[in-house]
Amino acid sequence: MNRQWIYTAAPEGKLTTDIFELRKTGVPEPGPGEVLVHNRYFNVMPGNRAYMHSGPLLGELGSQAGTPMTSLAVGEVVSSNDPAFAPGDVVQAMSAWQDYVAMPAQSLAKRDGAPSVEHYIGLMGQSGYTAYVGLLHVGQPRAGETLLVTAAAGGVGSAVVQLGKIAGCRVVGVAGGPEKCAWLEQEVGADATIDYKAGNLSEQLRQTCPEGVDLFFDNTGGPVLEAALDAMKHGGRIVLCGNTAQYDSDKPMSGPKGVPLTLILKDLTMKGFACMTYAEHFSEADRDYSSWLEEGRIKPFYHVIEGLEQAPNALVGVLGGVNLGMTMVRV
Amino acid sequence: MNRQWIYTAAPEGKLTTDIFELRKTGVPEPGPGEVLVHNRYFNVMPGNRAYMHSGPLLGELGSQAGTPMTSLAVGEVVSSNDPAFAPGDVVQAMSAWQDYVAMPAQSLAKRDGAPSVEHYIGLMGQSGYTAYVGLLHVGQPRAGETLLVTAAAGGVGSAVVQLGKIAGCRVVGVAGGPEKCAWLEQEVGADATIDYKAGNLSEQLRQTCPEGVDLFFDNTGGPVLEAALDAMKHGGRIVLCGNTAQYDSDKPMSGPKGVPLTLILKDLTMKGFACMTYAEHFSEADRDYSSWLEEGRIKPFYHVIEGLEQAPNALVGVLGGVNLGMTMVRV
Repeated sequence: MNRQWIYTAAPEGKLTTDIFELRKTGVPEPGPGEVLVHNRYFNVMPGNRAYMHSGPLLGELGSQAGTPMTSLAVGEVVSSNDPAFAPGDVVQAMSAWQDYVAMPAQSLAKRDGAPSVEHYIGLMGQSGYTAYVGLLHVGQPRAGETLLVTAAAGGVGSAVVQLGKIAGCRVVGVAGGPEKCAWLEQEVGADATIDYKAGNLSEQLRQTCPEGVDLFFDNTGGPVLEAALDAMKHGGRIVLCGNTAQYDSDKPMSGPKGVPLTLILKDLTMKGFACMTYAEHFSEADRDYSSWLEEGRIKPFYHVIEGLEQAPNALVGVLGGVNLGMTMVRV
Repeated sequence: MNRQWIYTAAPEGKLTTDIFELRKTGVPEPGPGEVLVHNRYFNVMPGNRAYMHSGPLLGELGSQAGTPMTSLAVGEVVSSNDPAFAPGDVVQAMSAWQDYVAMPAQSLAKRDGAPSVEHYIGLMGQSGYTAYVGLLHVGQPRAGETLLVTAAAGGVGSAVVQLGKIAGCRVVGVAGGPEKCAWLEQEVGADATIDYKAGNLSEQLRQTCPEGVDLFFDNTGGPVLEAALDAMKHGGRIVLCGNTAQYDSDKPMSGPKGVPLTLILKDLTMKGFACMTYAEHFSEADRDYSSWLEEGRIKPFYHVIEGLEQAPNALVGVLGGVNLGMTMVRV
């Protein structure tokens, strides 16, 4: 038997679990050139919510309602109609929230070598790659710079904080609530933190970044992005990675005050990026993460939720900011 | 006798001439190491309005009320207490709207070689340098790209249109009204134009840029910037040069919808710049403009207004968009 989480309709406003439906089907038969995979882990990230938009916000990029919820997954090959894959191989693919999937062989990547398969959803999966290419290739941090990171306790953010430390930056993390801030400073290694729920962002930015911000890695947009523009140093860079402040609404929000005037007056650069645009660097990320894990220079912060049936709850939890680090579901 | 236009107080809302006061003083005496200059031309540009802001918009960058209105000027040396300058030398400096000024020698640049001194306010002055470094060094246009330019009939814009053609781009200019659009196509060399006053910007962008915009040089901000984000190609670049839509208000406007989400989804880069940051390229701009003028590849579009007493009117006219090309006042 195969279980699939079907995303039945675009949510209006805040995501609730009732738009998902658990469908039970037979295990699919792999066709010619296809491989049958038993999923072991899949990814749960704010981006899952973003792609439920259709219409003005995402256009044709939106997910199709009525299909299994798209997600990165890692699993084991059960049977294969392609000579490149054999039963037992560990494979990673853009798959869906389901037990089994039959996919064309060219859509799968064979993976091995990591100390645990969780890493293929974590550091060596979408969140880890997003942090790696976004900070190192788009942001290009330099030792001694002040790096500001929003949603710092989340999947991408907690990796960016650590990568920033490896690059020699002073890292300031923004998160919601004193527990997350304490975790960021004590476990993840942030030099300072800002609790955005405590209010007075501008004053907190002045106190934690008295000389200004050189590099800002933003996962949220909204009021924090607006306040951070005023905290940027002349010539600073802003990496736009996510926009969680927008995801619960189909109506595009106004942009931050300060665009364009503050960017002009301070020679700022703002660069949006999609992780897949930098896919050529993923193998480099694998090598670096492997070394850093071995040397103990990076810690995997994985929040593993047991059971495929928990996937919709897990996503609601991620959007509500209740989990620390990278959230994944063990099937 | 020396006449000076004093900017007496920050304007509220739309600029009117009554905030300026014509003050008459004696001709200043140059002190040790100073040079006395008789101004011949000075610059009138939307930036003059921008720097009248103080408080939240510009902070300490704003002009000081009660002082002569700051402006680029070109003039002749009358007397000099520095061996590097002699009476009759043509000099360019950040000066003010006034007949005479005594300045430290190191604040002056000696200029010669241009076919007319007007060029030191025009192409080889602030507007021309802004267009040159902004388009060529910040924007880095490539042959065959579609370049969109706002305020295309203005001082900076009309130079950017021509530089874009020299770089081999297809150039689409945005301006207000059919006369300006006709001028851009017939005189300046734009391949197509958009009259923003005719409404339906998105539809006009689709028609003039059916394959999207590679490079957008923006002088205005506001609704045109917002609409243009949707018209950008994947991987496109946006050069932020000016924000005329903001200049008549001290209250920072909301930014364009699409920041940050459209930038993320389309891998867009947005780069603000201040001309002086790229001062190392000004001599390269002088050489290129000289060659292009000689070869007839660029036309100087100068709107010369006669008489220092006309300066406040000239600025109101520039902000109202009534002049074509680069506006300057002949003293």
